[in-house]
Amino acid sequence: MLAEIITIGDEILIGQIVDSNSAFIAKQLNRIGISVYQITSVQDDNVHILKALKEAEENADVIIITGGLGPTKDDITKNTLATYFEDTLIQSDAVLQNIESLWEKYVKQELSQLNRDQALVPSKSKVLMNRFGSAPGMWFDKDNKVFVSLPGVPFEMKALVEQEVIPKLSEQFELPFILHKTMLTYGLGESKLAERIELWEDNLSKNFKLAYLPSLGRVRLRLSAKGSHKSEIIVEMEKQVSALLPQIEDIFVGFEEDESIESVIGKQLTLLGKTLAVAESCTGGKIAEQITTKAGASKYFMGSVVSYATAAKIEVLRVDPKVIDTFSVVSVQVAEAMATQVQKLFNTEYGIATTGNAGPTKGDGAAEVGTVCIAIATPEGVYSEQYQLGNHRTKVIQKAVNKAFEMLYKEIFKN
Amino acid sequence: MLAEIITIGDEILIGQIVDSNSAFIAKQLNRIGISVYQITSVQDDNVHILKALKEAEENADVIIITGGLGPTKDDITKNTLATYFEDTLIQSDAVLQNIESLWEKYVKQELSQLNRDQALVPSKSKVLMNRFGSAPGMWFDKDNKVFVSLPGVPFEMKALVEQEVIPKLSEQFELPFILHKTMLTYGLGESKLAERIELWEDNLSKNFKLAYLPSLGRVRLRLSAKGSHKSEIIVEMEKQVSALLPQIEDIFVGFEEDESIESVIGKQLTLLGKTLAVAESCTGGKIAEQITTKAGASKYFMGSVVSYATAAKIEVLRVDPKVIDTFSVVSVQVAEAMATQVQKLFNTEYGIATTGNAGPTKGDGAAEVGTVCIAIATPEGVYSEQYQLGNHRTKVIQKAVNKAFEMLYKEIFKN
Repeated sequence: MLAEIITIGDEILIGQIVDSNSAFIAKQLNRIGISVYQITSVQDDNVHILKALKEAEENADVIIITGGLGPTKDDITKNTLATYFEDTLIQSDAVLQNIESLWEKYVKQELSQLNRDQALVPSKSKVLMNRFGSAPGMWFDKDNKVFVSLPGVPFEMKALVEQEVIPKLSEQFELPFILHKTMLTYGLGESKLAERIELWEDNLSKNFKLAYLPSLGRVRLRLSAKGSHKSEIIVEMEKQVSALLPQIEDIFVGFEEDESIESVIGKQLTLLGKTLAVAESCTGGKIAEQITTKAGASKYFMGSVVSYATAAKIEVLRVDPKVIDTFSVVSVQVAEAMATQVQKLFNTEYGIATTGNAGPTKGDGAAEVGTVCIAIATPEGVYSEQYQLGNHRTKVIQKAVNKAFEMLYKEIFKN
Repeated sequence: MLAEIITIGDEILIGQIVDSNSAFIAKQLNRIGISVYQITSVQDDNVHILKALKEAEENADVIIITGGLGPTKDDITKNTLATYFEDTLIQSDAVLQNIESLWEKYVKQELSQLNRDQALVPSKSKVLMNRFGSAPGMWFDKDNKVFVSLPGVPFEMKALVEQEVIPKLSEQFELPFILHKTMLTYGLGESKLAERIELWEDNLSKNFKLAYLPSLGRVRLRLSAKGSHKSEIIVEMEKQVSALLPQIEDIFVGFEEDESIESVIGKQLTLLGKTLAVAESCTGGKIAEQITTKAGASKYFMGSVVSYATAAKIEVLRVDPKVIDTFSVVSVQVAEAMATQVQKLFNTEYGIATTGNAGPTKGDGAAEVGTVCIAIATPEGVYSEQYQLGNHRTKVIQKAVNKAFEMLYKEIFKN
């Protein structure tokens, strides 16, 4: 079973918006065993849309179209669909009722003709009711293939995919079973990791596929299996993962699609009833920001001092100026002093500190661009590392943030 | 001139990552007058890539390919490109040298064969050197059409597009002259703004196009003009902007595509020789992070205290606990105390403070989700505002950050 996703809209092609709808739809389809063959973004133009529909029909069994539905653009997509299916538009009373009730409840203005026209749908389509907006979803059956047209507003599209499209597809088609298992690793590059597990990878059976998904010092290994015998696939997946884990034990963080090192640390600290504070220089608040992005951080995160200026390291963190004079502001000694000072200041069990030069030019100290010192203070003591993280400012900052979390992770889980 | 963007990678088609590269590339191409006809995401599969290349060549003059370049086994793009151009891979000494120097400087491990192989490129291609990574960009000329293959890692791709692809395309093709002028406004919604400048907009000549680019309380107005007479367009653009500015004077921040309120503030503080410190509660470090993302922040930004826990507001910022008891932790009084305390602590002219509840549940205080109090301390005094910023955690945080910068902006420029 193959699908193709077509997204319609000039705003995508001029780079005004990032098409995040496709990733959502692709994930949902994959989960029920439908692979996405291609994603195509086309203009608000009937010739182009017709061409994309025709090509998609040749490649795929399920064609999902998003965007191009709305009070101003409606005509193009809906009329083009009517042309494609040699159909005409008729009024759907249910859709008109839905629009009228939405307007009465939320918009509180008179219904315009543009909005009333959104109730027009091709006569051969089944309406998928959009509870959150005026543009309905539409489902077309044609020669054992399915075409679904959805509004482009993300939360309207998502609700329709989850509540209508996925259940209907699962019912209509006999789908293979697909299983994904994603393992997060850190500290070993993509190619080194590939070399290390080469033998294991080469021996995977044909219905298994391994993907390396690298990002700044971390690599996600995604193992996927497909087949008709669900129980066999589950057993085989377990077997393969069990064989792999001992080989990556030292760099393995956890399973699950969206598990980050930060969230694993947060869960563990909450569980242990321990707290954390951060002193940031070159990372400029990004460690604190990354921690507090997730709800629930207040259970273990007390706060942070962004001591960007050297004076702030002395005045606010109360780092001994002699340490700075002796070793320079970017040094493991200053990092360690910052970590223990912030731990004291916020009265926490753990402290993280960063000091470095993210570039593009040399800063307060004499440190080379890319030099970053990171320290971790624990109830048992303090330790630090010096890194060289490259010459790209944004990348140096994000890598330093990642390294800091990795160092803390090791400390928290070492016992 | 038409372009097509092809993004390669199973990770896009299974929905693991959102393809943000295409939007970036599309924006850059549009800026120099090349329209994007289609964006196509295909599998890591040579048959599929070949098909996409062939179709793109039929539709477009410029074909940009991203992704599918990397050291591991799923890399098939280069061989497929060699097939497509009836070419063979040869070693590029310059690329190998670049890889070796990156490894020596940053990776500090022996170069593996996998990484060494990244120096293999089709013999007919011109190498676009990737200063930030091991996978080079490749440029192919074929029958007056251009194919460019770029690595998929966003910051590597971006650097190559900005420094190599765009300049080379501008040089090789005679492109129409395009002029964009972007004006950043704040505090007035898109539709209200549209109403206010309707008359001006209706009178724009046909070769002018106005786009409204809204985002969380700010609207960018992008005015674009296209034509073959450069000088005429420049004069007309000046005339139109001069006519518009008086109408948006009260909400206008500045020009330039990437000029943010933060960078305007930074420039002005640097110019005045004034300094800034921040005390963040609900924004969790994001204000500091947004300031320090840009190089040069150390000239005016002294630092920040992220006082996430109430205790940290008392212990670290030394806010009077009586103020917290009397008015509750989310109150304009506490925000004002935080702002003046952080101003004192870091010895700065200006202070920003935020305290609020970003959700999803009620926190330390009794404040409703979405309530945020923001204070600005200046050499003349302190003032504050209370906002209700909705029920979506990420949005509440970003909106609070935006509001804080807008309040400071007003203060700095009021004289």
